[in-house]
Amino acid sequence: MSRNARYELIAAHYARNIQDGLLYAGERLPSLRTLCRRESVSLMTALAAYRRLEQLGLVEAQERSGYRVRDQAAAQVLRSPMRRPRLAQPSRKREVLADQMLAAVADPSLVPLGMGVPSRTLFPLQELRRVSTKLLRTKPELWASYSPPPGDRALRRLIALRLRDRGLQVGVDEVLLTAGAMEALSLALRVLVRPGDAVAVECPTFFGILDAARGVGARVIELPTDAKSGLDPAHLDAACRQHSIRAVVLVPSFGNPSGGLMPDERKQRWATLLHKQGVGVIEDDLYGELAHDGRAVAPLVSFSREGSGEPPALLVGSFSKTLLPGGRVGYVVARGSWAEKLKRLKQSTSLANVTLPEQVVATFLSSGTYQRQLRKMRSAFADGVATLRGEIAEHFPSGTKVSHPRGGFLLWVELPPGCDGVSLFHAAIARGISIAPGSLFTLGPGFERFIRLNAGAAVERKDSIATLGKLARRQQASGNA
Amino acid sequence: MSRNARYELIAAHYARNIQDGLLYAGERLPSLRTLCRRESVSLMTALAAYRRLEQLGLVEAQERSGYRVRDQAAAQVLRSPMRRPRLAQPSRKREVLADQMLAAVADPSLVPLGMGVPSRTLFPLQELRRVSTKLLRTKPELWASYSPPPGDRALRRLIALRLRDRGLQVGVDEVLLTAGAMEALSLALRVLVRPGDAVAVECPTFFGILDAARGVGARVIELPTDAKSGLDPAHLDAACRQHSIRAVVLVPSFGNPSGGLMPDERKQRWATLLHKQGVGVIEDDLYGELAHDGRAVAPLVSFSREGSGEPPALLVGSFSKTLLPGGRVGYVVARGSWAEKLKRLKQSTSLANVTLPEQVVATFLSSGTYQRQLRKMRSAFADGVATLRGEIAEHFPSGTKVSHPRGGFLLWVELPPGCDGVSLFHAAIARGISIAPGSLFTLGPGFERFIRLNAGAAVERKDSIATLGKLARRQQASGNA
Repeated sequence: MSRNARYELIAAHYARNIQDGLLYAGERLPSLRTLCRRESVSLMTALAAYRRLEQLGLVEAQERSGYRVRDQAAAQVLRSPMRRPRLAQPSRKREVLADQMLAAVADPSLVPLGMGVPSRTLFPLQELRRVSTKLLRTKPELWASYSPPPGDRALRRLIALRLRDRGLQVGVDEVLLTAGAMEALSLALRVLVRPGDAVAVECPTFFGILDAARGVGARVIELPTDAKSGLDPAHLDAACRQHSIRAVVLVPSFGNPSGGLMPDERKQRWATLLHKQGVGVIEDDLYGELAHDGRAVAPLVSFSREGSGEPPALLVGSFSKTLLPGGRVGYVVARGSWAEKLKRLKQSTSLANVTLPEQVVATFLSSGTYQRQLRKMRSAFADGVATLRGEIAEHFPSGTKVSHPRGGFLLWVELPPGCDGVSLFHAAIARGISIAPGSLFTLGPGFERFIRLNAGAAVERKDSIATLGKLARRQQASGNA
Repeated sequence: MSRNARYELIAAHYARNIQDGLLYAGERLPSLRTLCRRESVSLMTALAAYRRLEQLGLVEAQERSGYRVRDQAAAQVLRSPMRRPRLAQPSRKREVLADQMLAAVADPSLVPLGMGVPSRTLFPLQELRRVSTKLLRTKPELWASYSPPPGDRALRRLIALRLRDRGLQVGVDEVLLTAGAMEALSLALRVLVRPGDAVAVECPTFFGILDAARGVGARVIELPTDAKSGLDPAHLDAACRQHSIRAVVLVPSFGNPSGGLMPDERKQRWATLLHKQGVGVIEDDLYGELAHDGRAVAPLVSFSREGSGEPPALLVGSFSKTLLPGGRVGYVVARGSWAEKLKRLKQSTSLANVTLPEQVVATFLSSGTYQRQLRKMRSAFADGVATLRGEIAEHFPSGTKVSHPRGGFLLWVELPPGCDGVSLFHAAIARGISIAPGSLFTLGPGFERFIRLNAGAAVERKDSIATLGKLARRQQASGNA
């Protein structure tokens, strides 16, 4: 290869990086010396490559600081590929809608009424920072080590004790730590369900459950749930006559999105039915510790029978709603051989967890700080739910119905005829507000007039409910016209 | 329920926690006031419950500090359920063996020659701590926010630039950040492969690839690889005549365990064959930046053709071997619609990544510190490989063959006839040394006399090679007797 061709190739490489928007305006290119070493070329060749980029108007030489990407060049190419995909094309397709909602959730400029995460101000940021910094000082090796499954033993012990206090007799080795509740849910489904198996879920239910069930190739059977007391086991009993159902996924405690709390008597009936039909259960317990009055809620799986012939009963939990969403510390609890199977699947799925967050959570749990944090959260959620319900009553069109959850921070809102959740979602985004359209909470039709709102974001809310109410009233007026 | 029954129930709850080893000797029970609130009982009932535990000899009252678990009681019950499962029963069953090796890897008291992670002393612990602490100070909201797929944009840009420097033209949105390379690999397989599909792998290959392929329900076809230059595409071509192969998983750059480096000419032939047969490829590029001489190694997928009709070509990488194993920062790179599919699967698999480690890696990459760290690693690995090869030549039985990798830090050792890798693994554990038995690197027979050793653990190694050599010579002597 001639020297000319070589410098041209190097110049073309950087030109492409600049044109594709991978190098920013003002960003420095490697020094000539570095370039020589990296490309095994002479100083003259390296210089020729950069001069070529200069001729193309892409970079400029700056005294003592080498070559930098030119503002204008960058500004030109930055326009198309670097911008966040716009939510310009409203869609009703569930997958596209889900992507758009997740994009909205990740956008810090929007009022976060659509996401299932409380306001940042409710998390103990200073204490989290203090604990993390101290752990990195006293255990500097944390970043250099793995936390292989089942995960940090100290944390698993503390989780087991908390669950025992709520009536679920569980051993330390029956707790598997995961990358958040979503990984826990996904592992639970993958361990119970083969592709093509039927899985029953509540309708409506958390869209992550629907996605995870489809992600494992399950046939999803949606059963109508009760906003106050959760899914009636009679519905599953009936469905079992038509389908061979492998497992059911339930959110019995302050369910997402409806917010209901299943009474213990119904949980007991579930245990009996699951035993009778031989159906496994996955309990999503994300909100189980968030009763506004602080009461200890017994998990549904604590009622299920033990024994090797019994169908599996798994519980999924996390610290993302109460302590550190950014730490992705979740867990799945299962008995005996199911715990072993989950551990193996976790090994071949993500090998290990991030070390630091596990230790941060363990520190909070062992010191009692977590207990104080939970009390603070519960009280803020009780206030948030009451206030948001009030604001909705004031601003939303007449005929609007709102759930009245006794735990958690999610409100399920039914708009009156003439309104539409998906259109409202797109209109709200345009006004800087994210909400969750009801259509996401089912695979079929049925919740077009519903939206889910986050009552844990009081600080950020400001006058967004008034704005939403205005939009909904406008919909109602034109819809009924 | 009578008051008597209530206090008995509470006492039974704590007795069970103590007897199951969930409460430690010396650990404090909740204060009487806390117990009253938690169980909604009177002070007299709470006191009666703790008195009952005292009578049972399980707790003792201590002035001013409440009730604590008694040493003796705890010591009695701690014995059985709290101990780490012993490696007492040597096994040849692959699954059990894999569990035993992972348990050994997690045991800090063992000399870590079995794991694929370099010595802690090679990671920039002080700098990692400094960067993490600063990030938590300047962005305290990190723990309170999610990093949804595809993950932190700044880090994805830096990864794309690094890959472009190695010849892989990739866009920012074609990089998906994952919880380590294992999640990347698992997602890549799940997106390409349906249960029952045939997947080709090298033989021998990294056991995590075998586990992940089986985890997605694939039929695994093992093709004999070349320790020097990787798998010959002719083997896949031949296999395609017998099987309908969906994808092949390759480790072309300093492959695990053999350490070979596939020449560019062979990579080009792979690209041609994959196009011709319509077979997808997943390239495990974990060691691609670890050439001992610092040369830039072109990924195999950089040779593959682009275009919507072309089979998918995915690349998997991570920062676990070079910067922070405990951060689980990995990535998978794919073009166009495959990137979209991976992103959706990640959403329904683990929702988001831990925020802090992504930002730590981005900080290292943007400052040039990562470049220095890589140079340090490469030089330590070159030294480690040379030294360990020397020690093996000195101490191992005659007839032992050792790989000679030009990158990475893994040695693949073939013991002479009479020796056995699995027996050596168990004997080594008993002497405080972990090694990886060759049998783990295949689903069939064939590598019973092989072991994989970690040359990145020079500090911890001490005289363990002499010990291993003695054990192997003893095997040889009795095996040949």
